[in-house]
Amino acid sequence: MAPPTQAAAPNGRVAQAEMRSANMGLILRHLRTQGGRSRARLAQETGLSKATTSSLVADLAARGLVREGDPVRGGAVGRPGTTVSLDGALVTGIGVELGVDYAVFTAVTLSGTVVREQVSPLDVAHLPLDVVLDRTATQLNRMVASLRAAHTEVAGITVSPPGIIDYSSGSLRFAPNLGWRNVPLASEYARRLDSPTPPIRLENDAKLAALAEYVRFATQGVKDLVYLTGEVGVGAGIISDGRLVRGWSGYSGEVGHLQLDPGQRPCNCGRRGCWETVVGLAAFLELAAPEGDSLRDPVRPIEDRLYELRTRADAGDGATLHALTTIADHLATGLSLLVDVLNPEVIVLGGYFAFFADLLTPAVDERLRARRLDDGSLARLETSELGLMAAARGGAVLALEDVFADPTTIRSHP
Amino acid sequence: MAPPTQAAAPNGRVAQAEMRSANMGLILRHLRTQGGRSRARLAQETGLSKATTSSLVADLAARGLVREGDPVRGGAVGRPGTTVSLDGALVTGIGVELGVDYAVFTAVTLSGTVVREQVSPLDVAHLPLDVVLDRTATQLNRMVASLRAAHTEVAGITVSPPGIIDYSSGSLRFAPNLGWRNVPLASEYARRLDSPTPPIRLENDAKLAALAEYVRFATQGVKDLVYLTGEVGVGAGIISDGRLVRGWSGYSGEVGHLQLDPGQRPCNCGRRGCWETVVGLAAFLELAAPEGDSLRDPVRPIEDRLYELRTRADAGDGATLHALTTIADHLATGLSLLVDVLNPEVIVLGGYFAFFADLLTPAVDERLRARRLDDGSLARLETSELGLMAAARGGAVLALEDVFADPTTIRSHP
Repeated sequence: MAPPTQAAAPNGRVAQAEMRSANMGLILRHLRTQGGRSRARLAQETGLSKATTSSLVADLAARGLVREGDPVRGGAVGRPGTTVSLDGALVTGIGVELGVDYAVFTAVTLSGTVVREQVSPLDVAHLPLDVVLDRTATQLNRMVASLRAAHTEVAGITVSPPGIIDYSSGSLRFAPNLGWRNVPLASEYARRLDSPTPPIRLENDAKLAALAEYVRFATQGVKDLVYLTGEVGVGAGIISDGRLVRGWSGYSGEVGHLQLDPGQRPCNCGRRGCWETVVGLAAFLELAAPEGDSLRDPVRPIEDRLYELRTRADAGDGATLHALTTIADHLATGLSLLVDVLNPEVIVLGGYFAFFADLLTPAVDERLRARRLDDGSLARLETSELGLMAAARGGAVLALEDVFADPTTIRSHP
Repeated sequence: MAPPTQAAAPNGRVAQAEMRSANMGLILRHLRTQGGRSRARLAQETGLSKATTSSLVADLAARGLVREGDPVRGGAVGRPGTTVSLDGALVTGIGVELGVDYAVFTAVTLSGTVVREQVSPLDVAHLPLDVVLDRTATQLNRMVASLRAAHTEVAGITVSPPGIIDYSSGSLRFAPNLGWRNVPLASEYARRLDSPTPPIRLENDAKLAALAEYVRFATQGVKDLVYLTGEVGVGAGIISDGRLVRGWSGYSGEVGHLQLDPGQRPCNCGRRGCWETVVGLAAFLELAAPEGDSLRDPVRPIEDRLYELRTRADAGDGATLHALTTIADHLATGLSLLVDVLNPEVIVLGGYFAFFADLLTPAVDERLRARRLDDGSLARLETSELGLMAAARGGAVLALEDVFADPTTIRSHP
């Protein structure tokens, strides 16, 4: 639904330029959903004049966003037209996720193909900030250079840092697990990247993962989805009616500190019984492994410990299975809050929850059913299939959405 | 942001008709935000051809949505054009709210003027269903007839019933305070209304109140808002990025049963410590009035009791002020959940909370500040100014949004 009141747009030449780019976006989105078609048909279907359509298609072609192909034989009289199609192959978006001990780089084309993807172990938590920035910028430069060598344009880069983002300044305000404070990440990358530097933005990992998962579920007609991360922290990405819910200042989905039980232990946020304290990775390890167990060893990589827990669970280890039952219980308590507030059709479990999804889902589902207020408010539980890739994939998708909204963000190559 | 994947639209003639109505909506919204202008300028700014623009404007005029006025003297050569303007006066939306002991009827024009509004005491809780439907349908018929006598078209009617809606069938599934079950309200009204019957839909009161309040705050640039009702039940209406968050099956904002404290008393929903049990009207009356107090008399009208409580609070009555402090505390606990999940810029307190807003707001605000995770996630508390009118106003707004989305919902008068 459109807002009852819209902001006034500027007049005259500016409005005209905006309308032109909006109509280029209209054509591009029309080609995405309807497939290739003649200029005449494009004009007819969009209601744009033939002259405007031709001018906009030529502009889109000069930016490498559409191509004209084989002649179309229509029923109409007159000379045959040629097919205008979306040309997604030569425009990409890049997503970068900085984890605590890894970095992921993904490039996705306008037509949705993943053309580059790499996961690099990187001790982000212990290396000096400059070293982390230098090394990841080098990898980014290589990826951009290899795309450009293949005549591929990079529409934009989305960086997902492991902490709180200040959206207005493009900086990382605070990363609790790294100790970083007020790092102007967007500009730090901008000055390390080779020219021309694509636009760089920051976005939260849970929001990006939600976008990446939404690409999969949208084809099934799903429009309302919640993605739940579960690592040291817990966070959610929310899609409502096909749109990312960012909140006023970008801080939606900060669900790790939802207070589930004021009678429980205090959290370092100042509240008590926060969701994160009972379903975060630390809580799981504490529940599953007795004091002195090697799983409690902070030096062991998390993935390694998760694999061992998976092995123990598969072998029927009582402590691990009991821990999972407890986690499922607390997961359902928190998820039922999100269901009441948001009424999603699908909840996607990501992070370490995805790793144990087959063991967690039936128990969580049973508890959600028991707590439901109405049959119409039951959400379907699904498992993230993207694993570590989710946030980087979502970052690439987000960078590309700008192109569909305003194709003039891609430079013209006359 | 546009969805990464959109549903395929039908081809050919249907697509063309859809594109035509979409472009009529584009022109109508352009006129709403930009004001009246010539056809030539409309064509220039929208990128539509002059022929298409003229045809669409003529169509809009035939439907009474735009009018052509005084000649425009532009700088360009050629004959002067006439101004095309939004003609909001003769198209209205109607909202109806059925309360437990009243009904509200509101008509709002396309240009946002409230042209009819009446609140009727009606003992909905005790009268037979048929009597309630007959009486309210009679009032609706009178309002529609008086609008039509003034040559005003009714674009649609939104009915807000006091219960759970089944959106797919247009029926009231269950109204706990009325005992009504499975009432096909939309069709019951449709067969009672004089022909031609405007489209009738049902929507939840909190969602409609959120829409009505959003009209006010949107002019300040607010795009993310939560409206909280507080009567017997507690519910929320959510606006995210200027759009109503309905949820998958329309059940978003069901916040009355958010479990705030599993250690508290059981709720009839099966959970424990639900928000409603500690901030609902019943909880407030129980806190403020000792056993035997006349405020506990269920026969006394609620408004009457609220006025007495307001008088007691203003006189400094200890029990009433203490009750308000407790309510403020629990309000903040629940609101902090909504802030974490949704990150609204503004929270509008409605229902009985609005009645005591000056006493509640400072305490709630202080507690929200103490619980905040980040300064960027602090929401501003505001008070509903619409009172009992909120849901009906929002219903009228919702009915009109259809016209801006698709002006062909208004019949042509050639």
